[in-house]
Amino acid sequence: MKESVKMKIELGDRAIAVGVLGFGGLGQAAARVLEGKREMRLVAAADREGFAFAGDGLEVDACITAYRDRGSLGHLDAGSLSGNSIQDLVGKAKVDGYFLALPNLPNTFMADVAEQFIQSGWRGVLVDALKRTSAVEQLLALQDKLQAAGITYMTGCGATPGLLTAAAAIAAQSYAEIHSVNITFGVGIANWEAYRATIREDIAHIPGYDVDKAKAMSDAEVETFLDKTNGILKLENMEHADDIMLELAGICPRDRVTVGGVVDTRNPKKPLSTNVQVTGRTFEGKISTHTFTLGDETSMAANVCGPAFGYLKTGIALHRRGLYGLFTAAEVMPQFVR
Amino acid sequence: MKESVKMKIELGDRAIAVGVLGFGGLGQAAARVLEGKREMRLVAAADREGFAFAGDGLEVDACITAYRDRGSLGHLDAGSLSGNSIQDLVGKAKVDGYFLALPNLPNTFMADVAEQFIQSGWRGVLVDALKRTSAVEQLLALQDKLQAAGITYMTGCGATPGLLTAAAAIAAQSYAEIHSVNITFGVGIANWEAYRATIREDIAHIPGYDVDKAKAMSDAEVETFLDKTNGILKLENMEHADDIMLELAGICPRDRVTVGGVVDTRNPKKPLSTNVQVTGRTFEGKISTHTFTLGDETSMAANVCGPAFGYLKTGIALHRRGLYGLFTAAEVMPQFVR
Repeated sequence: MKESVKMKIELGDRAIAVGVLGFGGLGQAAARVLEGKREMRLVAAADREGFAFAGDGLEVDACITAYRDRGSLGHLDAGSLSGNSIQDLVGKAKVDGYFLALPNLPNTFMADVAEQFIQSGWRGVLVDALKRTSAVEQLLALQDKLQAAGITYMTGCGATPGLLTAAAAIAAQSYAEIHSVNITFGVGIANWEAYRATIREDIAHIPGYDVDKAKAMSDAEVETFLDKTNGILKLENMEHADDIMLELAGICPRDRVTVGGVVDTRNPKKPLSTNVQVTGRTFEGKISTHTFTLGDETSMAANVCGPAFGYLKTGIALHRRGLYGLFTAAEVMPQFVR
Repeated sequence: MKESVKMKIELGDRAIAVGVLGFGGLGQAAARVLEGKREMRLVAAADREGFAFAGDGLEVDACITAYRDRGSLGHLDAGSLSGNSIQDLVGKAKVDGYFLALPNLPNTFMADVAEQFIQSGWRGVLVDALKRTSAVEQLLALQDKLQAAGITYMTGCGATPGLLTAAAAIAAQSYAEIHSVNITFGVGIANWEAYRATIREDIAHIPGYDVDKAKAMSDAEVETFLDKTNGILKLENMEHADDIMLELAGICPRDRVTVGGVVDTRNPKKPLSTNVQVTGRTFEGKISTHTFTLGDETSMAANVCGPAFGYLKTGIALHRRGLYGLFTAAEVMPQFVR
């Protein structure tokens, strides 16, 4: 296969050295995704209590076992226990780009971590799969600092926002004006316990709950909550950063973007097919709708981690051209990571 | 609405000065699309027998009337008749970017025009909506010359290749490996005479025909041909540049990409919904298919011209950053033109 025409990264023989921050369900899935890649290598990972680093690559099985059985990556031979695991890792590891597979709660978490990177003097690419509009707003406020620090920060690069936002940005091209962008997701997970943070983030969107209240729930309380709904979470008019990302890309005002979905916490089968519908008016005055639908067999992990590393690769290309600061998934094309 | 975070073009108050080369059905539609844009202005246009240029903008109605009733834009007050209309226009007009709304036949046409631009010393952005793989291969051979000339050339930026190729590149992100990309288009046009060149390009894909044979057909011969199929053109395994574009973007080998469709030349209603299906294997080993489907009410003109100008805007941003050479629609994100 020929190489990309023009935006390709001049990698030489070296794989991109990747770090994963956060080692819950999403971080572990990210590590598994990287196992299949020639162009990227997992060299660093951190959880709340420690971190591990190995320039020639971490063994994913060992990482997952250490985290699951002993509570932290810090127990690995290549690991260290630390109460400031991110800061300590960043100071020590040689990493081209980090995937922030961190909980979205508290809502200031991504911006706080970005600030830590800015303070550290590290230069490279950060990519997140955050969800909320307000979290992107906090990062926007760091735009100048990120640029000055030589950090290329790719935000909203998961499934939604991310994959579906990018598809909406493409779909918008047929229209003179965009009337609405409607994102509806279906998620099925057999064991919500593997996605403790994610489920609390979802509950925070339910009327009567907010971020603080959801975060404070014990596992037993979450269990009780889910018992009442037969394990189903139905979410409407969610605060989702797809709206600000499409607004920033000049596609439509944010109030034309809506996000909702159904999460089944007791069944791996999706309760509905995740899709985005983009409705607009063509230059001839016709109203129509383009639809992008994800295959039901693709997991949340595949639809989040795939795009995240695709945008990380694009971020590396931008960084090597001296383009720093904040980018969203709706602004640049993700590259395919082999 | 806020401005784009980072890749925005620093336009100041000036609209992008756009030229349209070719003024058949596609060129005229392109002019109409530009009428609705604040960020772009049609300042130049050329047909086979002449050209017109006006720095403060051409009147689209007058252009279409002159072409239809008198045979060339050269008859306009702002026009000149010329047997070398492209060359003469490029030497004279101040244009930021040209949309090459030219026939794909002969198959070397785009590369020949690109050579003319390279020779002329003009620097700026070119965008095409070409169709065939071999036409992209000819442009690839010009990569170094385009770069040296300071030309940013965006190729395959119509509907397919273009909009659907970009959607496929996004969709691919969920997968570790892509098994197939299947593009199926439906086109309905009430009067094929308005798209004489396009219809001949389609006929050239029919078994028993080729580019030369199709191009040599008289209108009466096309009419007779269409009478036999009740106005329907069914196309399979077409030579379409989506394949090389996805290969160049590193997504899959070109032989995994297939393009086919149905064109109804006697009915504005599409015989089927245009769509692209991307099938792959996720990192967990699941096989699945993402589908991107265009709304039936969107015309070929809307799905070609919208993306073409979206990529032209991206091309302007690349050009202003000193990024010259050949780019495809699968490599960079089109921007939304307001």
